[in-house]
Amino acid sequence: MKKIDLNSDMGEGFGAYSIGDDAGMLRIVTTVNVACGFHAGDPEIMFSTFRAAKEAGVAIGAHPGYPDLWGFGRRRIPYSTGEITRFIAYQIGAAAAVALLANHKITHVKVHGALGNLAEENAEIAEALVGAVTSVDRSLSLFVIGGSMLDQVASRHSLPIVREIYADRAYLDTGQLMPRKLPGSVIHDAELAGKRVLAMMQEGAVIAASGKRIPLQIASVCVHGDTPNAVSIASTVRCELEKAGFTVTPYTSV
Amino acid sequence: MKKIDLNSDMGEGFGAYSIGDDAGMLRIVTTVNVACGFHAGDPEIMFSTFRAAKEAGVAIGAHPGYPDLWGFGRRRIPYSTGEITRFIAYQIGAAAAVALLANHKITHVKVHGALGNLAEENAEIAEALVGAVTSVDRSLSLFVIGGSMLDQVASRHSLPIVREIYADRAYLDTGQLMPRKLPGSVIHDAELAGKRVLAMMQEGAVIAASGKRIPLQIASVCVHGDTPNAVSIASTVRCELEKAGFTVTPYTSV
Amino acid sequence: MKKIDLNSDMGEGFGAYSIGDDAGMLRIVTTVNVACGFHAGDPEIMFSTFRAAKEAGVAIGAHPGYPDLWGFGRRRIPYSTGEITRFIAYQIGAAAAVALLANHKITHVKVHGALGNLAEENAEIAEALVGAVTSVDRSLSLFVIGGSMLDQVASRHSLPIVREIYADRAYLDTGQLMPRKLPGSVIHDAELAGKRVLAMMQEGAVIAASGKRIPLQIASVCVHGDTPNAVSIASTVRCELEKAGFTVTPYTSV
Amino acid sequence: MKKIDLNSDMGEGFGAYSIGDDAGMLRIVTTVNVACGFHAGDPEIMFSTFRAAKEAGVAIGAHPGYPDLWGFGRRRIPYSTGEITRFIAYQIGAAAAVALLANHKITHVKVHGALGNLAEENAEIAEALVGAVTSVDRSLSLFVIGGSMLDQVASRHSLPIVREIYADRAYLDTGQLMPRKLPGSVIHDAELAGKRVLAMMQEGAVIAASGKRIPLQIASVCVHGDTPNAVSIASTVRCELEKAGFTVTPYTSV
Repeated sequence: MKKIDLNSDMGEGFGAYSIGDDAGMLRIVTTVNVACGFHAGDPEIMFSTFRAAKEAGVAIGAHPGYPDLWGFGRRRIPYSTGEITRFIAYQIGAAAAVALLANHKITHVKVHGALGNLAEENAEIAEALVGAVTSVDRSLSLFVIGGSMLDQVASRHSLPIVREIYADRAYLDTGQLMPRKLPGSVIHDAELAGKRVLAMMQEGAVIAASGKRIPLQIASVCVHGDTPNAVSIASTVRCELEKAGFTVTPYTSV
Repeated sequence: MKKIDLNSDMGEGFGAYSIGDDAGMLRIVTTVNVACGFHAGDPEIMFSTFRAAKEAGVAIGAHPGYPDLWGFGRRRIPYSTGEITRFIAYQIGAAAAVALLANHKITHVKVHGALGNLAEENAEIAEALVGAVTSVDRSLSLFVIGGSMLDQVASRHSLPIVREIYADRAYLDTGQLMPRKLPGSVIHDAELAGKRVLAMMQEGAVIAASGKRIPLQIASVCVHGDTPNAVSIASTVRCELEKAGFTVTPYTSV
Repeated sequence: MKKIDLNSDMGEGFGAYSIGDDAGMLRIVTTVNVACGFHAGDPEIMFSTFRAAKEAGVAIGAHPGYPDLWGFGRRRIPYSTGEITRFIAYQIGAAAAVALLANHKITHVKVHGALGNLAEENAEIAEALVGAVTSVDRSLSLFVIGGSMLDQVASRHSLPIVREIYADRAYLDTGQLMPRKLPGSVIHDAELAGKRVLAMMQEGAVIAASGKRIPLQIASVCVHGDTPNAVSIASTVRCELEKAGFTVTPYTSV
Repeated sequence: MKKIDLNSDMGEGFGAYSIGDDAGMLRIVTTVNVACGFHAGDPEIMFSTFRAAKEAGVAIGAHPGYPDLWGFGRRRIPYSTGEITRFIAYQIGAAAAVALLANHKITHVKVHGALGNLAEENAEIAEALVGAVTSVDRSLSLFVIGGSMLDQVASRHSLPIVREIYADRAYLDTGQLMPRKLPGSVIHDAELAGKRVLAMMQEGAVIAASGKRIPLQIASVCVHGDTPNAVSIASTVRCELEKAGFTVTPYTSV
């Protein structure tokens, strides 16, 4: 039987603020990446998200980012690799501890925003992140874009890896995400998103906008939670996959 | 052979700021309580403090506090017990992870400032703190003032406890610290501090300002790091104890 | 001709976060109270809110609060009156400067949340706030609940005062807002809110839940922006007032 | 009579933290640049610094920087020019208001750290800063390194300018500060600093490390407050100038 994980970022509010329909997404996805209080999130939101995930049977991971609440982790701030290793380790540890309060357990790390993008292309940043994860807990899986620099570095360090595709983003021929500023880079149509994901799963390859195939062992599909029709896209992707015979289940049971 | 631990708060700077002569204190004490980034401290300072402690053979613990950098954790902020449990767990987890980066391991928790004081007297707050510690790691020791509410609650939950006395603070007949605003509450004379600590160790009792003895199994002596002559006091206390035949060693080896 | 101002809090997002339908409210109200970066708001949001208010012909004021983004200014934090005076002055000055960038000008202050509530009942806190306003700019109006401690203190210091009623809140016989925890304290029905406001305006009195009348020179009606049907309530209140012959116009032109 | 101003950054602590001997420097300098709560400083420190400056007859200015307390404003963070204009205006307004509480008045702006350095070389950043100052208060002077991009932009906008030299920094032939990483870039010897400043004042020129002279109308001499012998350097510079017949007085009376 073919299995696939469906993941989404979650818990990216702060105090009185919230972003996205977390409750709606939690009914659809099988894995959530939870903000750790630096680019978003706080101990309260982390706790309630972990607890809700536990009740829903959904796997959880830390979703650390730059210490930049004002910028939501989307600005590239010139931290040294040492500083990055430290503040990522800090966030992973914090998430692990709060998850225990909720009787759940984090089993992966997915890096957020500008820092995540940087690590996909920059070897030193990728090393900094992998160093943080391996030092804190070698059993944690790292979510990566297949074939990226982060994938290569994590593989070299024998870190467990979950290779993912994005349901709502177009790809370049390199296998990288098409930059958001280019037309057609973001897919808003739920039907289209569902069909694309299914095609990629069935072919075992990323399908670039040009039609080019880049073979990839896809372990998870990422659906964004902060777009207007996020729940609709996620729901459609899940339906398409299940209709085609895939079992949508947490990566931890894949 | 009689053993005793000597502990001090440390790593309470932030970014470009520092407080106290951490390097000086680290040559004298056997245990340090390291700020976790909420009332003070940041991932960089935590890391370098943990690493220096490792090199010095000094035991480390998390020193969490209120999320109040501006107030240095000295303001009583009305958080619910649930909120306190969550943000204390968060800080302990963060400290544990950063310690691993430094090849060290936290083995205790000592709560900072206003929140620590509150927990010494308030059962619900004490429960909140103990709940955080037991959920995150039951093997962590909790530093407490002997006989305080926190001592009682932690004992009831069978948490490992390290009962401490303060080298530079006078005591009330209740065994509580004399409030700082009262005259004579803070001892600035190093010789006097040394003699008092020694007397308390030899008698196995807290000696109140009135002369009253409150029996206590003293496992550690706290010396503050942020007073002008902190290093001098700590050094004198250590000398007095060693001259009297005590072995000053981390509580982890007591 | 009878004139009345309609005010709402606004610009209470932070970075990527937003709360309430600011654009929708801005088409209805005549005055906005803009968060200043401590309990909510940031320089970007302040600027764009001020600019939009300028374009809409809407009066603006500073809406300072506790330095507590995590708590959205709703926690009572034990700051001294001196500290309160300083951080309120700081926020008013910041708002005044950013308003100038937007070619607009702040003409009032309305204190937010827990600090505002405290000032309605506590004379020392009220003095602290009035002291901040008078030191920074004596020409600024202060929004107050009629008859409150803040009203009395501001009157004694001859500060310009705008006395307001709340469209969506029930009143006690004392003229104070009924605490939110009591049943019936918050009015969710737009029609009801509209009729109540009109009745109070026509009688020149606050009408308590008991039916008791407390005479008051009402200069403004506050409509909240962060409730689900905020725009609907505000719109209905405005319609009722206009149908009854009131001119809804900024307090600066009353 | 020849007059010269002596300025120093001040109030760069935060909460319980302090940096430099502010009281010592305040007895020597005639102008202080006060941090505004973003890279350092808080309303309490701003207030007490402004009040002490008032008592000492010392001129005050806003010393705004990046919103980066952790990095003390020394990191170049990629903010847009619009964002920079807004957060600089915010800080200037905040400082102006808190100064009024202390019965003093800010009369200049000097930009801190990485943002200040950037503005010395980058025209767009310089425009952003000048735009903030002119929008908030056209009468404020801007402190600049003579001949820098910031000097040129501020001149073009007819902003009052105070051109300064650094007592403890070596210069390149371009008139720019020698980067700190180069040997000899920072002058630690008080006597040497004093003689250099005097020579530059007497020649009316910046004297580069090579001996090259770059003519400049020097209106102020900056002495740093956060180096170990800062007070000694400042004191020696002042003595040398006074012995040579200069009157050391606030730029506001030059």
